[in-house]
Amino acid sequence: MADSPRRIAVLGSTGSIGRQTLDVVRAFPGAFRVVALAARGNVALLAEQAREFAPELVACTSEDAEVRRQLDALLPRAMRGPDGLMAAATHADVEMVVAATSGLVGVEPTLAAIRAGKTIALANKETLVMAGHLVMPEARRHGVEILPVDSEHSALWQCLRGERHAEVRKLIITASGGPFRGMSREQMREVTVEQALHHPTWNMGPKVTIDSATLMNKGLEVIEAHWLFAMPYEQIEVVVQPQSIVHSMVEYVDDSIKMQASLPSMHLPIQDALSYPARLDRAGTPLARELRWHEVARLEFAAVDRERFPCLDLAYAAGRRGGTAPAVLVGADETAVALFLAGKIRLPEIAELIGAALERHTVIAEPSLADVQAASQWAQDEVARLAGERPPESHAKG
Amino acid sequence: MADSPRRIAVLGSTGSIGRQTLDVVRAFPGAFRVVALAARGNVALLAEQAREFAPELVACTSEDAEVRRQLDALLPRAMRGPDGLMAAATHADVEMVVAATSGLVGVEPTLAAIRAGKTIALANKETLVMAGHLVMPEARRHGVEILPVDSEHSALWQCLRGERHAEVRKLIITASGGPFRGMSREQMREVTVEQALHHPTWNMGPKVTIDSATLMNKGLEVIEAHWLFAMPYEQIEVVVQPQSIVHSMVEYVDDSIKMQASLPSMHLPIQDALSYPARLDRAGTPLARELRWHEVARLEFAAVDRERFPCLDLAYAAGRRGGTAPAVLVGADETAVALFLAGKIRLPEIAELIGAALERHTVIAEPSLADVQAASQWAQDEVARLAGERPPESHAKG
Repeated sequence: MADSPRRIAVLGSTGSIGRQTLDVVRAFPGAFRVVALAARGNVALLAEQAREFAPELVACTSEDAEVRRQLDALLPRAMRGPDGLMAAATHADVEMVVAATSGLVGVEPTLAAIRAGKTIALANKETLVMAGHLVMPEARRHGVEILPVDSEHSALWQCLRGERHAEVRKLIITASGGPFRGMSREQMREVTVEQALHHPTWNMGPKVTIDSATLMNKGLEVIEAHWLFAMPYEQIEVVVQPQSIVHSMVEYVDDSIKMQASLPSMHLPIQDALSYPARLDRAGTPLARELRWHEVARLEFAAVDRERFPCLDLAYAAGRRGGTAPAVLVGADETAVALFLAGKIRLPEIAELIGAALERHTVIAEPSLADVQAASQWAQDEVARLAGERPPESHAKG
Repeated sequence: MADSPRRIAVLGSTGSIGRQTLDVVRAFPGAFRVVALAARGNVALLAEQAREFAPELVACTSEDAEVRRQLDALLPRAMRGPDGLMAAATHADVEMVVAATSGLVGVEPTLAAIRAGKTIALANKETLVMAGHLVMPEARRHGVEILPVDSEHSALWQCLRGERHAEVRKLIITASGGPFRGMSREQMREVTVEQALHHPTWNMGPKVTIDSATLMNKGLEVIEAHWLFAMPYEQIEVVVQPQSIVHSMVEYVDDSIKMQASLPSMHLPIQDALSYPARLDRAGTPLARELRWHEVARLEFAAVDRERFPCLDLAYAAGRRGGTAPAVLVGADETAVALFLAGKIRLPEIAELIGAALERHTVIAEPSLADVQAASQWAQDEVARLAGERPPESHAKG
């Protein structure tokens, strides 16, 4: 690390990744300076963060009247609306932007930050899945690095360090396999929302937990890896590693494999992106989590059952098709998961509805951001419509 | 790789590593050119190798009269005696020297090769264990790289690529645990030579196999790693990994661990040193051995039982003590293993005799190569003497 603190902006500071980013900042006094904080609607937490980190800019994007009233009371000097996110992403004093908003709202500020020459620590999935074709060329054009903030991509990135792109045979992304790894197709049809929300190794929000149970999450990671590491889909594989200790691996043309391992924690990939190219010593910090091999004792590996987890193949297909297909994948999944969480559909119907939306969609080849947004919105509406057409019991057919 | 073939000398071409080096050369036509071959006494094989690879220099170091007669018949133009080894190591057309002789005989040619600016692919254990304090400073002085040819060190070297030395918390060398991993102390006392020679994952010569069963091999690797990667002994650990798939790992200060994995084969570390910094594609070559994770299914890890495997602590102690202590370790081990293989002592006595020799030895702090040789020879004699003093049954006391 340079002697002067690295100056960062955190977009989405009140979300899970945003809060953990600030844990990292807190754990290494003097290493980072929070220049800008931006969040959506959690004004109370944002105000608390602003008091603690004294950023130069605070932004709250929500245009809700109640949120505005809270802002007037707690953060009268905060910027309001989407302009705040852009201002945080491009603030002159910022070196690195942690892009941790959820959804497509993060894409424009990320593009703006790239154009302003900021290094991007990217935690927002949609940015690359739906707009990788816009973001990656822009980053190359401006000589800006996109650093992954995600266990799997951070693992790949670490394993690729010091190696040559042309000598990579494949990226092997590990999957915990989710809570339904051992279940039959029949059992999966009967899964309750409660069962689906109980993930064996990671503690996450409901949407991500369901995506993890269906392996859609892994599918999105495959698409992200494709963009992040400029790797064709034929060279990206998924392997089940139930303990979530090995976070991914890279196989080289000489049959040598490099793996990255650590106890499951999002703090590590966040920290590694924030401090890159340095690694900061966690010993003695509240984040320390040293892995002891004799305690781990065993790592298991298994192939993914692609019949029971069709979301993975849907994601590969959407990724290969390109254009607006990944946006449809994401939009359709969002609505399908919401329907499952609301008890309206069964687990296997998530994949069925996404598959149906992808089939009905006419792909636009080199879509603008507006095209991507429209495709995603169309998919959400389409899945809602398709689900509504299904007679209440028909979904039990699987 | 450069377009022109890399020009190599193989010292010890008829030994296990030497032969496998030539397998690698054979597997990648056009990538390498064998400029010099040197071996000890296997004239028939050396002559065969000379016919196949047409080197500019062939050397046979044995001064045995029968070997000389064979040379006159099969390789009349071969160089004879130790000068041949030096000539091969310093040949003007050679870029890289594969140092694969066994014993201390390899040290002088390796030092000569370093002074001549050759890259060293180092397969000879004694060179670093006994003379690391002479070899490593010489390599630094001449800006020469020492590339490891050993699964464990190659793994560490790969995991260190693109990383910073100061950010390494520890090197974790994996051990298969050998054939006696699950045995009690009592059972180990009754081990036969035959049992000891049956290694679960690696197929090696008798001396190395016994060293592997006692974990002395791992101890020597710890000392090698200390020199090769300039790492203090406190930062080098050993972990049992019975499947021999993970060949070693590096833990960084941020708790992130990088591991290297591949199916057990010496061809890979040889190939990686020969082609460095490139990795050559093994697909379609006779050396191809792609690891399939769902077939591996499980990797286990366990702590070393240091009470049952005291050779490991003896090696750490000798390494820490430095000077001539590692030479005594190696010399004492050589004779002790020979005594075990001859049925003269029991397995646990190997460590007892090495420990006794180390205790009796007065360490010379900055030894010359002659000091090292003398210490090693003293240890061999001392172990033979100590073993001779033991009444035939006394060793059964354990």
